[in-house]
Amino acid sequence: MSSGGRFEARDPDFEDKVRESFAQQGLMRTLGARMTDVAPGRCTIELPFADGLTQQDGFFHAGAIGAVADSAGGYAGWTLMPAGSRVLSVEYKLNLLAPAAGELAIAHGAVLRSGRTLTVSKADVLVRADGEEKLCATLLQTLMCLKDGDPAGVRRTS
Amino acid sequence: MSSGGRFEARDPDFEDKVRESFAQQGLMRTLGARMTDVAPGRCTIELPFADGLTQQDGFFHAGAIGAVADSAGGYAGWTLMPAGSRVLSVEYKLNLLAPAAGELAIAHGAVLRSGRTLTVSKADVLVRADGEEKLCATLLQTLMCLKDGDPAGVRRTS
Amino acid sequence: MSSGGRFEARDPDFEDKVRESFAQQGLMRTLGARMTDVAPGRCTIELPFADGLTQQDGFFHAGAIGAVADSAGGYAGWTLMPAGSRVLSVEYKLNLLAPAAGELAIAHGAVLRSGRTLTVSKADVLVRADGEEKLCATLLQTLMCLKDGDPAGVRRTS
Amino acid sequence: MSSGGRFEARDPDFEDKVRESFAQQGLMRTLGARMTDVAPGRCTIELPFADGLTQQDGFFHAGAIGAVADSAGGYAGWTLMPAGSRVLSVEYKLNLLAPAAGELAIAHGAVLRSGRTLTVSKADVLVRADGEEKLCATLLQTLMCLKDGDPAGVRRTS
Repeated sequence: MSSGGRFEARDPDFEDKVRESFAQQGLMRTLGARMTDVAPGRCTIELPFADGLTQQDGFFHAGAIGAVADSAGGYAGWTLMPAGSRVLSVEYKLNLLAPAAGELAIAHGAVLRSGRTLTVSKADVLVRADGEEKLCATLLQTLMCLKDGDPAGVRRTS
Repeated sequence: MSSGGRFEARDPDFEDKVRESFAQQGLMRTLGARMTDVAPGRCTIELPFADGLTQQDGFFHAGAIGAVADSAGGYAGWTLMPAGSRVLSVEYKLNLLAPAAGELAIAHGAVLRSGRTLTVSKADVLVRADGEEKLCATLLQTLMCLKDGDPAGVRRTS
Repeated sequence: MSSGGRFEARDPDFEDKVRESFAQQGLMRTLGARMTDVAPGRCTIELPFADGLTQQDGFFHAGAIGAVADSAGGYAGWTLMPAGSRVLSVEYKLNLLAPAAGELAIAHGAVLRSGRTLTVSKADVLVRADGEEKLCATLLQTLMCLKDGDPAGVRRTS
Repeated sequence: MSSGGRFEARDPDFEDKVRESFAQQGLMRTLGARMTDVAPGRCTIELPFADGLTQQDGFFHAGAIGAVADSAGGYAGWTLMPAGSRVLSVEYKLNLLAPAAGELAIAHGAVLRSGRTLTVSKADVLVRADGEEKLCATLLQTLMCLKDGDPAGVRRTS
């Protein structure tokens, strides 16, 4: 497993675990997001436009864009983590590049660097309007790998 | 208007415009968020816990936390902008400091620096559990002030 | 000029202005950095290792890596701005992906989105050790275009 | 040890180790930075203006500001880590709030959250000009605690 190149999943069941976990994210259900693709080091989540996702000008809210980008990058990272581990977002930064006006947002998550404890992912969010896709946002994110059974996770203070 | 100190609103109707705009954010309605406080340079948004807001472990999803933090910081910035202007998030960074486990998330947005074109805000997100409030996330954000009538805004390419 | 594709410079003298400006950056001289490549929407800056650039473990200091990445992304953005404009960094985020241990750091800056007022750039920093180049850091950055004669720039409060 | 409140150092020799480590940072020497204060969860680094620290307009370069802010936040975090540990910057975000024009930059680093593995710090950078101090930049940063003897650290890929 290394940066820049192609990735291999250590957990052969990575796709099942990712899709099951996604199905448990209440927020993704509430937003109406669907996971359309998952592969080692990559994950795509789509979000159809709805009135319930808007900011004050009627475009996709930056928070909705951020939520699907965070999930796409996070699951991209989790595909490379060992069986019996969990993933948490440590932090993310989202740059809004163009008004997110259109009928569908598509977040492509991809791992930049996969480490034992920390993983860095990116996600590009395209918005489709009138059949054309345009880059509307990009996210850069740090993830942490937790072993199952670690109750309070990463961020428990000592 | 300056950094660090107390702020004064240039638009006497800042509270009405902020509350009306918030009411138009479909995403805030979908999430169940409510604006509880707005003052020059400050804004608080609360988000009661619901199953529809979770990540895979049943806590608040980082995307939901980010959405209310982005709105709180953005509206804090908009309170200081002149009448006839709009506000757009240029970018934000969210650090997740502790698992967002609890019955209520409270995002306190506050302006760090208010400029003619750009404003920088922060937002701290507390989560209340068993009557105790704990800092769970912090956001640092850049906003842009747009004049009404500027159709595609900031991010139109030339 | 648009995102994602190839860029064209509006200022035919973009290379001269960029190289002259770089020569005026005292910090780049102090660090020993050199600009090796500049093209519309792109800029590369190299930094040879020196004892005066280290953190406590003897690797390149994150601050040195950040400085050349900020300059590479910033100048990449400036290549696309009109004659008679200046560029300022509004903010940047740097993720350190691997220990920056090696004899040369190479920061490749590239524009993601070029707008009238704001530009978003990225920079990847490779470190060469034993003839091999490895991705050690990645930067995501917001820039602002200022017109000459605007004395205090972007960030003047009103 | 917890967020928001006062911090206690677990390593009674925290000040000596921090000051010795700072003395080993070649970059801080090159820039002319000095550590003026260190306490549990806090660290201040000052940087006197010099021609060798400038960007193209003659102000402090954002990279120099970022370097001292990164060190101030990083050492603030390290004061709270156990004896026999090292600290690495995972990532940082710097917002430039005002032109860094003045005779002295003062970076105040402070821990927001100290965890077993990860620590989140902030740093505010003031610039003194004509006897007045002004907030010019703010940094938000993630740090990792490494045990001594872990050779490649955090970011070793597996």
